Amino acid sequence: MRIALGLQYDGSHFSGWQSQVNQNTIQDELEKAISAFVGIDALKSNPIRVITAGRTDTGVHALGQVVHFDVEVERENWSWVRGVNTFLPESIVVNWAQPVSDEFSARYSAHERTYIYALHAGPCRSPMSASRAGYVMLPADRWFDVDAMKRSAGYLIGEHDFTSFRSSECQSKTPVKTIYSIEIFSDEPWLYFKIKGNAFLHHMVRNLVGSFIQIGIGKQSADWMAKVLAAKDRSIAAPTFSPAGLYLAQIAYPEEFNIPKPWLENSWLPKNLF
Amino acid sequence: MRIALGLQYDGSHFSGWQSQVNQNTIQDELEKAISAFVGIDALKSNPIRVITAGRTDTGVHALGQVVHFDVEVERENWSWVRGVNTFLPESIVVNWAQPVSDEFSARYSAHERTYIYALHAGPCRSPMSASRAGYVMLPADRWFDVDAMKRSAGYLIGEHDFTSFRSSECQSKTPVKTIYSIEIFSDEPWLYFKIKGNAFLHHMVRNLVGSFIQIGIGKQSADWMAKVLAAKDRSIAAPTFSPAGLYLAQIAYPEEFNIPKPWLENSWLPKNLF
Repeated sequence: MRIALGLQYDGSHFSGWQSQVNQNTIQDELEKAISAFVGIDALKSNPIRVITAGRTDTGVHALGQVVHFDVEVERENWSWVRGVNTFLPESIVVNWAQPVSDEFSARYSAHERTYIYALHAGPCRSPMSASRAGYVMLPADRWFDVDAMKRSAGYLIGEHDFTSFRSSECQSKTPVKTIYSIEIFSDEPWLYFKIKGNAFLHHMVRNLVGSFIQIGIGKQSADWMAKVLAAKDRSIAAPTFSPAGLYLAQIAYPEEFNIPKPWLENSWLPKNLF
Repeated sequence: MRIALGLQYDGSHFSGWQSQVNQNTIQDELEKAISAFVGIDALKSNPIRVITAGRTDTGVHALGQVVHFDVEVERENWSWVRGVNTFLPESIVVNWAQPVSDEFSARYSAHERTYIYALHAGPCRSPMSASRAGYVMLPADRWFDVDAMKRSAGYLIGEHDFTSFRSSECQSKTPVKTIYSIEIFSDEPWLYFKIKGNAFLHHMVRNLVGSFIQIGIGKQSADWMAKVLAAKDRSIAAPTFSPAGLYLAQIAYPEEFNIPKPWLENSWLPKNLF
């Protein structure tokens, strides 16, 4: 039987999603918790392995992560939620669980991914958002040129070769991805980016945000973004921006799989983002 | 010369405000940072001592804490801010600094204190607010009886003996305090309390919130609050609620001291609270 789970986590406590020897990862915590709940002794037999919709880096958060796994035992949906949560640290929470058809893959069935980036700017850092938002030092009387940032976002919409925004460690087969939309919400002292695409390269959102900031603070003009994109050269885009403000917000699947929407409201991000 | 500082901190990393031997406290961090900035070697001479407007407990946050200290050296206001921040961990941030008259005391000149309590409720905890909000387990189709909570708040306004909401460790000379206002904002899955008073007993806000929740979930009626208050007996109020959702938001002083307003906007709490 194949089960899908929706989960949220505060990534600041973990060395990213993917299982690693001697590292504290979200995948390891989740696999341990599911295995413990179904009564598998990981020392004697194989623990449950989960497949995720999107691997997140160290310090990156998830509000609407989706995974699936195959298991022999049957449980009520709500029993999966409560049971697995019992074995998870408070920084990882399962929100829903349901059986899915064997054709469903959390990874390969996903056709759209939404990331949100939260940025705080001002003369001082905010201690309440140290691990939850990126930070740009700005004097009290200055703010980003949000219009220029929005204009520059226009160049990125559609199918493009995003090599300029791709980490050298990226394992994607192709640098060609499609961005469906980029919305930028300004709410001083906060700036939010909401980016939807079919899939993203490694570090792509953080590299895009770094470049938007260069435009927002007036170091580059809006059409610089078009030049960076066209160059297909990682060295001319801005450095990778902090993981602290990045949230994997939503994964979309074909309707036939009937996958629940994520619980974005409990994130403390403003509701007009959802 | 007397200097006043405004600061914010994420209290989840500290054993409260007050200096303690072998404990990690905000007062100790701040005194160390100020002493380091003005070049006092704490091993050879006395470090700078600060007086605070309100000592906060383990896990309690501050958005508008105010302190003062006396010092021989002169620095520009902004230099105090940047300089002291250099020596502070990122969970404590100085927002402003200015010279004040010797009559000013961060503690004794304060005539009004505002606390905000953030509560999250729903079927699952939110990992993003684990140390930043209190939590009440509620089924997805239920919400608090906010009208009853607001009615019960009415009984608390004004000068009262708050013995029923006082911790046994409270060092206040008198249990008689004045509450000026209690506002309750409902924004599912969040509930916020904003409480203004001349001063508060130890654990008073958390004990009030615990009692409001009993009313909100229907375990007690609104007028139970009046009975608890009248009883002057700690044992009949609700247990002390979690420190995680408590924020020291603002300290008010007579206008003559010209103390800046706190920077509440960078807290991620909704702006209609301010």
